[in-house]
Amino acid sequence: MTVLDLPPSPIVPSVDFGRDGVQHGTLRLPYSRDDSAWGSVMIPVAVIKNGEGPTALLTGANHGDEYEGPIALFDLARTLDPAQVRGRVIIVPAMNYPAFRAGTRTSPIDKGNLNRSFPGRPDGTPTQKIADYFQRHLLPLADIVLDFHSGGRTLDFVPFAAAHILPDKDQEARCFAAVEAFSAPWSMRMLEIDAVGMYDTAAEAAGKVFVTTELGGGGTATARTAGIAKRGVRNLLRHAGILEGEVERAPSRWLDMPSADCFRFAEQDGMAETCVDLGEPVKKGDVIARIHPVDRTGQAPAEYRAALDGILAARHFPGLVKAGDCLAVIGTVEG
Amino acid sequence: MTVLDLPPSPIVPSVDFGRDGVQHGTLRLPYSRDDSAWGSVMIPVAVIKNGEGPTALLTGANHGDEYEGPIALFDLARTLDPAQVRGRVIIVPAMNYPAFRAGTRTSPIDKGNLNRSFPGRPDGTPTQKIADYFQRHLLPLADIVLDFHSGGRTLDFVPFAAAHILPDKDQEARCFAAVEAFSAPWSMRMLEIDAVGMYDTAAEAAGKVFVTTELGGGGTATARTAGIAKRGVRNLLRHAGILEGEVERAPSRWLDMPSADCFRFAEQDGMAETCVDLGEPVKKGDVIARIHPVDRTGQAPAEYRAALDGILAARHFPGLVKAGDCLAVIGTVEG
Amino acid sequence: MTVLDLPPSPIVPSVDFGRDGVQHGTLRLPYSRDDSAWGSVMIPVAVIKNGEGPTALLTGANHGDEYEGPIALFDLARTLDPAQVRGRVIIVPAMNYPAFRAGTRTSPIDKGNLNRSFPGRPDGTPTQKIADYFQRHLLPLADIVLDFHSGGRTLDFVPFAAAHILPDKDQEARCFAAVEAFSAPWSMRMLEIDAVGMYDTAAEAAGKVFVTTELGGGGTATARTAGIAKRGVRNLLRHAGILEGEVERAPSRWLDMPSADCFRFAEQDGMAETCVDLGEPVKKGDVIARIHPVDRTGQAPAEYRAALDGILAARHFPGLVKAGDCLAVIGTVEG
Amino acid sequence: MTVLDLPPSPIVPSVDFGRDGVQHGTLRLPYSRDDSAWGSVMIPVAVIKNGEGPTALLTGANHGDEYEGPIALFDLARTLDPAQVRGRVIIVPAMNYPAFRAGTRTSPIDKGNLNRSFPGRPDGTPTQKIADYFQRHLLPLADIVLDFHSGGRTLDFVPFAAAHILPDKDQEARCFAAVEAFSAPWSMRMLEIDAVGMYDTAAEAAGKVFVTTELGGGGTATARTAGIAKRGVRNLLRHAGILEGEVERAPSRWLDMPSADCFRFAEQDGMAETCVDLGEPVKKGDVIARIHPVDRTGQAPAEYRAALDGILAARHFPGLVKAGDCLAVIGTVEG
Amino acid sequence: MTVLDLPPSPIVPSVDFGRDGVQHGTLRLPYSRDDSAWGSVMIPVAVIKNGEGPTALLTGANHGDEYEGPIALFDLARTLDPAQVRGRVIIVPAMNYPAFRAGTRTSPIDKGNLNRSFPGRPDGTPTQKIADYFQRHLLPLADIVLDFHSGGRTLDFVPFAAAHILPDKDQEARCFAAVEAFSAPWSMRMLEIDAVGMYDTAAEAAGKVFVTTELGGGGTATARTAGIAKRGVRNLLRHAGILEGEVERAPSRWLDMPSADCFRFAEQDGMAETCVDLGEPVKKGDVIARIHPVDRTGQAPAEYRAALDGILAARHFPGLVKAGDCLAVIGTVEG
Amino acid sequence: MTVLDLPPSPIVPSVDFGRDGVQHGTLRLPYSRDDSAWGSVMIPVAVIKNGEGPTALLTGANHGDEYEGPIALFDLARTLDPAQVRGRVIIVPAMNYPAFRAGTRTSPIDKGNLNRSFPGRPDGTPTQKIADYFQRHLLPLADIVLDFHSGGRTLDFVPFAAAHILPDKDQEARCFAAVEAFSAPWSMRMLEIDAVGMYDTAAEAAGKVFVTTELGGGGTATARTAGIAKRGVRNLLRHAGILEGEVERAPSRWLDMPSADCFRFAEQDGMAETCVDLGEPVKKGDVIARIHPVDRTGQAPAEYRAALDGILAARHFPGLVKAGDCLAVIGTVEG
Repeated sequence: MTVLDLPPSPIVPSVDFGRDGVQHGTLRLPYSRDDSAWGSVMIPVAVIKNGEGPTALLTGANHGDEYEGPIALFDLARTLDPAQVRGRVIIVPAMNYPAFRAGTRTSPIDKGNLNRSFPGRPDGTPTQKIADYFQRHLLPLADIVLDFHSGGRTLDFVPFAAAHILPDKDQEARCFAAVEAFSAPWSMRMLEIDAVGMYDTAAEAAGKVFVTTELGGGGTATARTAGIAKRGVRNLLRHAGILEGEVERAPSRWLDMPSADCFRFAEQDGMAETCVDLGEPVKKGDVIARIHPVDRTGQAPAEYRAALDGILAARHFPGLVKAGDCLAVIGTVEG
Repeated sequence: MTVLDLPPSPIVPSVDFGRDGVQHGTLRLPYSRDDSAWGSVMIPVAVIKNGEGPTALLTGANHGDEYEGPIALFDLARTLDPAQVRGRVIIVPAMNYPAFRAGTRTSPIDKGNLNRSFPGRPDGTPTQKIADYFQRHLLPLADIVLDFHSGGRTLDFVPFAAAHILPDKDQEARCFAAVEAFSAPWSMRMLEIDAVGMYDTAAEAAGKVFVTTELGGGGTATARTAGIAKRGVRNLLRHAGILEGEVERAPSRWLDMPSADCFRFAEQDGMAETCVDLGEPVKKGDVIARIHPVDRTGQAPAEYRAALDGILAARHFPGLVKAGDCLAVIGTVEG
Repeated sequence: MTVLDLPPSPIVPSVDFGRDGVQHGTLRLPYSRDDSAWGSVMIPVAVIKNGEGPTALLTGANHGDEYEGPIALFDLARTLDPAQVRGRVIIVPAMNYPAFRAGTRTSPIDKGNLNRSFPGRPDGTPTQKIADYFQRHLLPLADIVLDFHSGGRTLDFVPFAAAHILPDKDQEARCFAAVEAFSAPWSMRMLEIDAVGMYDTAAEAAGKVFVTTELGGGGTATARTAGIAKRGVRNLLRHAGILEGEVERAPSRWLDMPSADCFRFAEQDGMAETCVDLGEPVKKGDVIARIHPVDRTGQAPAEYRAALDGILAARHFPGLVKAGDCLAVIGTVEG
Repeated sequence: MTVLDLPPSPIVPSVDFGRDGVQHGTLRLPYSRDDSAWGSVMIPVAVIKNGEGPTALLTGANHGDEYEGPIALFDLARTLDPAQVRGRVIIVPAMNYPAFRAGTRTSPIDKGNLNRSFPGRPDGTPTQKIADYFQRHLLPLADIVLDFHSGGRTLDFVPFAAAHILPDKDQEARCFAAVEAFSAPWSMRMLEIDAVGMYDTAAEAAGKVFVTTELGGGGTATARTAGIAKRGVRNLLRHAGILEGEVERAPSRWLDMPSADCFRFAEQDGMAETCVDLGEPVKKGDVIARIHPVDRTGQAPAEYRAALDGILAARHFPGLVKAGDCLAVIGTVEG
Repeated sequence: MTVLDLPPSPIVPSVDFGRDGVQHGTLRLPYSRDDSAWGSVMIPVAVIKNGEGPTALLTGANHGDEYEGPIALFDLARTLDPAQVRGRVIIVPAMNYPAFRAGTRTSPIDKGNLNRSFPGRPDGTPTQKIADYFQRHLLPLADIVLDFHSGGRTLDFVPFAAAHILPDKDQEARCFAAVEAFSAPWSMRMLEIDAVGMYDTAAEAAGKVFVTTELGGGGTATARTAGIAKRGVRNLLRHAGILEGEVERAPSRWLDMPSADCFRFAEQDGMAETCVDLGEPVKKGDVIARIHPVDRTGQAPAEYRAALDGILAARHFPGLVKAGDCLAVIGTVEG
Repeated sequence: MTVLDLPPSPIVPSVDFGRDGVQHGTLRLPYSRDDSAWGSVMIPVAVIKNGEGPTALLTGANHGDEYEGPIALFDLARTLDPAQVRGRVIIVPAMNYPAFRAGTRTSPIDKGNLNRSFPGRPDGTPTQKIADYFQRHLLPLADIVLDFHSGGRTLDFVPFAAAHILPDKDQEARCFAAVEAFSAPWSMRMLEIDAVGMYDTAAEAAGKVFVTTELGGGGTATARTAGIAKRGVRNLLRHAGILEGEVERAPSRWLDMPSADCFRFAEQDGMAETCVDLGEPVKKGDVIARIHPVDRTGQAPAEYRAALDGILAARHFPGLVKAGDCLAVIGTVEG
C-alpha cells in the first residue's frame, strides 16, 4: 500500500490551523473499547498564529513520562501573545496523550512507543494513528520542529539540546544552529545508528529543521530543568524569526557519543549504585557504577568501568536494575 | 491478648547473634502461597561481632523503594572488619524485603507499610510478622538503632539525619548527639504528631538511642547521597564506640518543621511544577509549586504559596500529582 | 478496646461545621501508599447553615456505583440557598469517595463495603476510617439522616424510599413519616435480618430519623430517577423544617418484602433473561426469569418461578449471571 | 497477498451445513496459550435446514456485552421446528464468543473489536480468524443476514432495526423492506461514514440483504427488548420465506441521524447526568446532558445542548464519563 | 469475644442434615462484591444418610489446587448407595470452593489459606466464614473426619495417608488405625510443630478421629493416585462401620519426618533439578537437588544434599524455584 | 518485502561464532519499555568449538515452561570439553528467554508463541526478532538441529524424540536416524498438518537434520526425564561426529499419530479425571477420561472414549479443564 492509497486519518481537530489568533482545542481520535463503545482520545492542541511567516511545531510527551517539555509547552500555550508572533506556532504539549495521562513511556492502550511508530497507520493502533496524523497532517505544515525529551522514569541525563548528523550538510548546519540558539547547558551532536520509526527521522526526511532534547529524567522535572526548557523554546522561536526579540544565549558545551563504547549495559540483576554523578568527569578505567547482589550480604558487587574519557552523561535511574538495562552513558567533551 | 500471650515468632534466623566474627545469613519467614505451598521469605542479615560492647541495629528499606540505606548497609556488611569492632553490629539492609525486591514502598504481599505495623503480630501478615520479630527479638538486643529512610519513588528530600523530640530529655539528648555524629548536610528535630505503629516509636519506647534519616528520594540514590549514608553510618558506629576511629564531622545545619503550615497538599489532579529546587530559600507568600490542568491548553495552573519562611525541604517527585498528595514541605532554619 | 479507648480520627475537615453560610470543602483522610508516600483521600463535603435549627446529614455513593444520590446532592450543594434554610444541612455526596471515583460498589483500596463497615476503626483500613468518622463525628451532629442507594452495576430496582421496622415504634413512625414526605413512586417497609455493620443501624441506634432509598440501578441514572432523588431530598428537608416551603407530595405505593421467599438466587451460571419487567405484577408460579446455558445451543434454560404474588421489585442487571447471584426480588403490595 | 493466496481457515465446524434437520454444534478455533498449550475456542452454532430454499445467517454478540440478540437466538435455535422451515437457518448466537463469555465488547484474548476486523485473516489473532471464517465460509452461504446489536455496557439506545443507505438502490430497497418486516419500535436509515472493517460492509459488499439492530443497552436486556428481538427475528424469517406464517407487524417510526451534529462527545471527565430520557423529544438548544465535576461541591456542571430537533436516540450509560466519550445522540424523526 | 458471643453463621445449607436418603445441595455463603451486590458463594454438599450410626465428614480441596480428594468425593457422592450405609456421610468435595474454582491453593477472594483459618469468624472474610461453619456446625456432627490433601501446583508427594501424634494416646491409636484402613502406599506419622489455624487441629481438639492425606501433586491427579483416593475413602467408611463390607487392605509402609533436617529450603533463585525421583532411597550426603543459575551458561549449580537417610518423600514441583521454597523433603522409613 | 529487503537484526551477540574454545555469552536484544527506556533482553548462549567439523545447534525453552531441554543444555554447556569436540556446538538453552524467565509457554512481553513465529521479523515484536535471528543467523550455521520440547504446564507426554515425515526422503532418513541415536524410550514419526510458523519447518526447509522431542510435562522435569534429555543430546552429538565416543543406545519403540482420531478435545468445562496413565495400552471404546461438573454433586461426568487402539501418549495436565482443551492423545504402536 503506498501513501497515496492510505485511508484518511480518523483524527478530527477542533482547531483551524489556518486561522489567526489563539485557539485551544483538541485532536479527537476515535477509540472504541470495552469501557466506551463510542469513545475517543482527546489530545490537547494549541495554535497561535499571526499573519504570514514560518511555522514551528512544538511537542512534548512523545514519551509519556517526560515532563520538561509539557511544563514548558502548557506554559507557552497559555502565555504566548500572538501580537509578538509572526507566522504560526502549533503546540501539542502531550503528543502521546494516553501515555502522558498514565505517566508511562508507552501508551497504556497498545504499548506503543510513539517515537518508534513513524510513519504510522491511519487504520492501526491509536499510537500508530497519532504518528500518521503527525506524518501526513502536521509535519507538512512546519518549517521548524522541536520535540522535547527527557530520560523518563528509568533514565537521567545532563540537560542538553541535540540534532543529528545528517547527509544534507546544509540542513545539518541549520539544525545545529537551532540547537545553539536553544542554549541548554550541553549541546549534543547525535549519530543515529537505528533511526527506524523515529519522529526525528520523519521530520528530517521531510527537510525540516529538527531539534530534540534530553533535559533530565527520573519521571520528574526540577525548577532548573523546567527553566531550561522554557527559555530554550522561546529562544528557538526567536531564532526562527517567529517570536520577536533576541535569543537569550547561555553557556553550552558540545558533547558527543562517538561509539558503542559510550554505553554500558547491566549484565546482572541487582541494586544499582552509580559511583559518579551526572556531569562529573570520568577517566577510562574508573568505576562508574556497581551492581550489588541483594539476596545475601557479603557478596562483592559487579563493577562497571569507563571505556573512555568523558563525563557521565546519562545513568540508569531506579534503584533496582535488570540485566540488559542501560546502566550508564559517557559523553565525550571537546577540547 | 497481652504480649505474654503471643505465640512465638515463626521467623527462623540462620545466624547466631551471640557468636563472634562475621556471619552473613537470613531470617527465614514461612509464607505459604499459591505459587509456593511451603515457601518462605528469606531476609538477608549480617552480624559482625567482636567481644563485649554495645550493639548497633542498622536497617534499610523499611520502605522498599529507598536506596541510600541499602547501598550503605550492603557495603558496610561486606567490608566491616571485626577486628575494628568492639561489641556487635546487626545489619538488616532490606528490612521489608518483599517490598525491597519489588521496588515499592509497601509489601507486594499484603500492602503492609512496615513503618506503620509495629508492634506487629506473630500470627498476622508477613509485614506484621517482620515487625513483631524486630519488636520482640532484635530491638531488645540493641543499644543504638539507625533506620535509613529516603523519599522513595514519590517524594524527594534535602539530605538529613533526624531524631524525635522526646519526653525523656536525657534520651532525646543522646539521640540528637547521635544525629550530630552522623553529619548529614542537614539535621532535623522532628515532632511526631501521629506516631502510631512506627518503628521509631517502638525503638524510642524501649529506651534506645534512635536515629533516622531522609537522604534523597525519587526511587534512586546518587553518588552524593549514597556517600552521605556510607559516611554517616560509620560515624554513628564510631560515636557509639563500636567502630574504632574518630567521627568524620562535616558541616550540618539544623532544620525544623514546627507546624502543619510546613506541609502543602495538592487540591487538584494535574501536572506538578515545582517552582524552587530542594534546599533553596523561600519566603512566605512565594509560589513554590503549580499544578497544571492537562486536558486542555490555555487554562491557568493552580498556585501553591509558602505559608512561612524557610527552605524547600521536600517535594512531590512524580510529574503527575493527585489531589491529596503532599506537594511540598518547607523546613525552617535556625538563625 | 472500648469506644473511649479509640485513638482520634485521622480525618481532617477543611470546613467548620459550626459556621453559618455555605462552605464547600473536604474531609482529608491520610493514606500512605506506593504511589503517594504522604498521600491522602479528599472527600468532598458541603455545609449549608443558617442559625439554629435541626441538622440533616445527606449522603450518596455509600456504594460507589450508585448515581441518583450523588447527582441530587452535588446539585443540592451547589444550589441550596442558605436564606431558605433554618438549621444545617451537611452534604457528603460521595461517602465512599475512592469507590465512587472508581465506579465500583466497594473501595478499590481495601475492597471495603462501607455499608458493612460500621462502626469502623480510626486505625483500620481507609473504608473503616470513613465509617469511624461518620460514627463518631458526623452522626452525632444530625437529627435526620438520608442515605441514598440504588442498585449499582449489578442490580436494578423500582424506585422507592424506605425505612426499617424498628423496636422503638415512635422512632419508626417518624422514619416512615419521612419516607412518605420523600414521595418516591414506591415506599418500602424493611425488616432487616442481618443489620451488622450497616450505616442504617448505626444511625438508628443513635436515635436518628433515618431514610434510605433504592432508586434504580445498573450503574447509571435516568432523568426520571435523578428527578425523583432531587425532589425527594428537598421534600425531606421541608418535612424536617430545615428548608422553607411545602412538601411536594406525589403518589406512592407501599411495598413489603415479608419473607425469604421474595428473593430468588441463581443456581446456575449462564445468561440471564428476565421474563417480566420491573414494577410488573407477578402471580405465584409465574416464570419470572430464565438462565440459559451458553456453551451449546439446543439446551433448555433453567426456569425460576415466583413463590408469591406481588410485583417484580428488583432484578439482576448484567446479561451474564453466576450461581449465587440474586436473580429477582418480588415485593408484595398492599390491598 | 490476495484472497486466493490465503491459507485455509483453522476453524473446524462440527456441523454439516448441507444436512437437513437440526444440528447443535461448534466452530472449533485452535488457540494455543499459556493455560492450554493445545487449547481451542468452541463457538456454538446451530443449523436448522429443510430442503431447498434461501439461507438466513443470524448472529448475536458480535460485541460481547449485548444481550437481546443472544437471548433471541439461543431461544430460536432451541425452538425452531424444521417442519416449519423451507431452506436453511444458520445461527451463531455468540459470534465473538470469547468476548461474550467475558461480558465485554471486545475479545479478552486480543482486544479485537470483531465488527472492525473484517475481512479478517486466517493466520491472525483469534478475532481475525473468526472474521475470516464468516467472510470466506458463512457469508457465501447466506441470502439474508441479520446481526443483532445493542448498546453494550456503555451506551443505551431506543430499540430500532436498521439498514444502510447503499449505492445499489435495489439492494437498499430489499434491506429496508427487511427492516420494516422486523417491526422494531423504531427503524433507522444509517449513512455509514467510516465502514472500514465492519461485518455490515462485508455482507453488503457480497450483495446480501443485511439487517442490523440497536435494541437497548447497558449490558443487560429487559423483557421488553428481548421480546422485540424474538419477534423481529421470526418476522425476518417469515419475510424471507424461510419460516412459514405471516409477518407480525407492529408500529415503527423511521429515524435518521443526518449529520455529525447528532452526536455529542464529552469534553470533560466527571459524573454524567442525562437530562432527558431515551425517546423523549428535544428541541435545538435544550440541555440534554450535564457533566458534574466531582472533586469538590459547589462547581457548575458543564451543559451539553441539542444541536437540532429530534428525539434522544442514544446516551452514555455509566454514571461516570470521560472526555471523548459519546454522551448523547439525537435522531431526527419524519413528519 | 468468646465463642458464645459469636454472631450466627451467615451460611445457609439447602440440605437437611437430619434427613434420611441422598441429598445434593449447597452451602450458600452471602458475598457482596463489585460484580454481584447481593451475590453468594454456593458450596456443593452431599448428605447420604440411613438411620442411626456414626457420621463421617469427608472433605477435599481444602487447598483449591489438589484433585485426588475432589475426584474421589464427587465420585462417591454420586455413587454411594444409602442402602449400603448405616449412619451418615457428609461430603464437601470442594471445601474452599472459590479456591477450587480458581485452581489455586488459596481463595482468590481474600487470599485465605483455609487450613490456616480455623476456628474462623462468622463476620470475617469468606474463607474465615467457611472455617467457622465447619468449626461450629459440621465438625460437631462428625465422628470421623477425612480431609484429602495433595501437593497442589507447587509440591509433589509420594502418596500417603497420615495422622498426627497426639497427646491423647487413645485418640491417636484410633487415628492411626484409620490411617491403616485407608491403605495408601505410604502411611505417615506426623508431629505438627506449628498447628495454629489448621482444620486438623480443630478436628482433633474436638476429639474426632482425624485422617488426612498427601496423594501426589503438581496440580493434577493421575489415574493411579485418584484410584488410591477412591479406594481409601471407601475403606475408611468400612472401617468406621458406616459402609458395609470389608476393608480392602493393600501394602503400606510407615514413613516419618522426625526433624527439621528432613526439609531442604532453596537458598537461590533459579531452575530446579531434582536428582532423585519420589520414593527413591537416598543416603545422607547424596545430592538430591540442584539449582541452576539461568542468566548465563557456564556457572556451577548449587547442590543440595540429604541430611539423613531415607526416601525422597516430597519435592518442589515447578521448573523454576525461588529462594525460600521448600525444595525437597526426606522421609525416614522403618526397619 | 522480500528477505533481501529486511533490515538487519537488532540482536547483538557477545560471542564470536567462529572462534575456537568455550565461550559463554549473550544475545542482546534491545527492548525499550516502560520500566527500562533503553533496556534489552539478554539471551544466554554458549559456543564450544574445536577446529573444523559439523555444527550442531541445540535449543531449549522454545516454549518457556518446558524444562528437560534447559536442564540438559545448561548442564552440557558447562561440562562439554572442547578437547572431545570436532566442529562446533551452539547452545541456546532458553530460546524464548522472556517466556523461560516467566515460566510460561509464550512470551510475557508480547504473548508470542516462538514456535509459531518463524520466519520472524527484525522490526517486529521481541519474539519475532528472536525468530528472525535464528532464521537468518543461526540456522545457516548449523548442520544438525535439536530443539527440546516437553508438554509444559498444561500437557504431559510419554518421553519421545521425533522427526517429521518429509517430502525429501533422503533428508527424512537422516532425521529418523538421528532420532534413533537420541534413544528416548519412544520415537515418533510426525505428520505435520499445520506447519506454518514452526521452527521445525524453518530448519527442515533449510535442509537441516532436525530432531525434536516431547519428554514429559506439567511444567516440571523429573530425574528420569532430565536423564533422558542429557543422554539424548550427547548421543546426538556422537551420532553427528561432533562428540567423540559411541552412541549409548537404549530401547525405544516407534509411535505414530496417524489421524485426527488420535486427539480428543474437551467439550465441557469441569474437573478432568484421566482414567488411564501415560504409556498404558487402550482399546477402541475404552473410557480414557472423564469431565466432572463441579457446581453440584450427584451429576454424571462426561465420558471420553478411545477412537482407536494404542497407548495414552499425552494428556491434559491441570486438574481443571475448559471446553476446547486437548484432553488426551492416543499414539499407535507398531506390531
